[in-house]
Amino acid sequence: MKNKDARLRIISSFVVAPFAVLGFVNYYALIALVSVVTLIASYEYIKFSIEDQKHTVLKLVIPLIITITSLSYGFLLEKNSLINKVDFRPESVFVLSFIGISIAIIVSLKDFNLALPFILNSTLALFWIGFNLSFFYQIYLSFGGAVALLVLTCVWFFDIGAYVVGMKFGRIRISPNYSPKKSLEGVFGGIGFTIAYIILFEIGASFINIFNHPDGTPRAFFDPLTLIIMGLIVAFFGTFGDIFESALKRYKKVKDAGNIMPGHGGLLDRIDGLLFVAPVLYIFLLILI
Amino acid sequence: MKNKDARLRIISSFVVAPFAVLGFVNYYALIALVSVVTLIASYEYIKFSIEDQKHTVLKLVIPLIITITSLSYGFLLEKNSLINKVDFRPESVFVLSFIGISIAIIVSLKDFNLALPFILNSTLALFWIGFNLSFFYQIYLSFGGAVALLVLTCVWFFDIGAYVVGMKFGRIRISPNYSPKKSLEGVFGGIGFTIAYIILFEIGASFINIFNHPDGTPRAFFDPLTLIIMGLIVAFFGTFGDIFESALKRYKKVKDAGNIMPGHGGLLDRIDGLLFVAPVLYIFLLILI
Repeated sequence: MKNKDARLRIISSFVVAPFAVLGFVNYYALIALVSVVTLIASYEYIKFSIEDQKHTVLKLVIPLIITITSLSYGFLLEKNSLINKVDFRPESVFVLSFIGISIAIIVSLKDFNLALPFILNSTLALFWIGFNLSFFYQIYLSFGGAVALLVLTCVWFFDIGAYVVGMKFGRIRISPNYSPKKSLEGVFGGIGFTIAYIILFEIGASFINIFNHPDGTPRAFFDPLTLIIMGLIVAFFGTFGDIFESALKRYKKVKDAGNIMPGHGGLLDRIDGLLFVAPVLYIFLLILI
Repeated sequence: MKNKDARLRIISSFVVAPFAVLGFVNYYALIALVSVVTLIASYEYIKFSIEDQKHTVLKLVIPLIITITSLSYGFLLEKNSLINKVDFRPESVFVLSFIGISIAIIVSLKDFNLALPFILNSTLALFWIGFNLSFFYQIYLSFGGAVALLVLTCVWFFDIGAYVVGMKFGRIRISPNYSPKKSLEGVFGGIGFTIAYIILFEIGASFINIFNHPDGTPRAFFDPLTLIIMGLIVAFFGTFGDIFESALKRYKKVKDAGNIMPGHGGLLDRIDGLLFVAPVLYIFLLILI
């Protein structure tokens, strides 16, 4: 990466970051943030994964349905039940959405050779982007806004650490075929950055009195073992999340998923690690804490 | 279809049907039935959708992971929470499974050109077969075994009605590209058969005292409007479920997904309509009843 690119990247980070942080002030702000990210990222994915140049309407409708699905899931998780008589399970919206998208594709496209790439890639976008990202709702509801913000930002700091340390000391390539730039040294640097960042976040958040449980009582700091496991989870799943998206892009011979953030590529390029980290970190915290 | 085929089809139906019915005697029998069907159907799908002749181990491991996911979801739905401290949402297993399968594929296959068809088709199998079919768990838990059995069997009777009436009176083709044999007359015949079957089922099930709520109290018969809407849901989503699988098969130039039931083709060919009907019928019953 050239020096000008790096500067562009840093500047656009400082522009976008405050908006992302604003999404954690309350649950409805989070739903808005997750929805906007889901809409843009799934549109980027549908656009680069389906080569066919026509059917621009369908390519807009599918990300829109995915976004409405995620949004409904967020509201249903909060209400927990839509209907009083019998338990309505929130995850039903994803199944209904899958069936609805499939029928919409079949009805719009008369040719199954055209329909198939739409079906396969829409299903992937619905669950990979829509379902995985919706775990931020669950993190917020179970652990509060500060932990949700921590999950988002610790992946950023892992990326920064892996990049900086990898540039300086990177020698051992971990995935020459999928993501040639990744080095083992970078991953270890990322783990160090992540753990250091989590500790700083805890101290800072407690200081301004936001490191709390959802009911408002202060939360205890993570113990050293938890910190180390959190660092390892971010490193392992963040790296594989990144490699996963690289595989999808390389298959389609695309470099960046989009161009929404100057110097960063697409939004999908920024959240790929997060899509794998968020659900796993959530379940780890659920079991351990 | 030739006469010999039709006879073979009827005979094998009478062999398989009792085993399917046995799956509804209690919740654990249902988990066993859904697991076996999920395993076979997802194996059939992975086998025909991924042309690559190698990697037979991965092609066995993926259906196995999908089955374990569905099984865990079934048990978690019953327990409702794995961990006492915070609510553990059962649908998390599907997200973890998606991440696990993706990482397993990336690790096993060094070439992303090989990995991509595995990723796309495994994701489809996990959610289309695993997630959709798991709605039988929810139907059982919310409405009892008799209604779950009714959902399964009314799709069978829709198919029989559509086939018989379509053979005799079928003229107007509804989907020449995806499924050339389907006729509008057949669909209407199917709706008639479905409604008639539901009424007979209600009478029969009440007579032997199994048409009950999960708590054992007798359930009221469906009113005429509910019956008509149920018939329409089975017809609409059953037909699209069938067309959906046809699209997947035609794309791969496959006629039958497998050969497990003589005269019927694969198991997936038998449950394709059900995969779309079960979730929609469940949500309809939840809202209406």
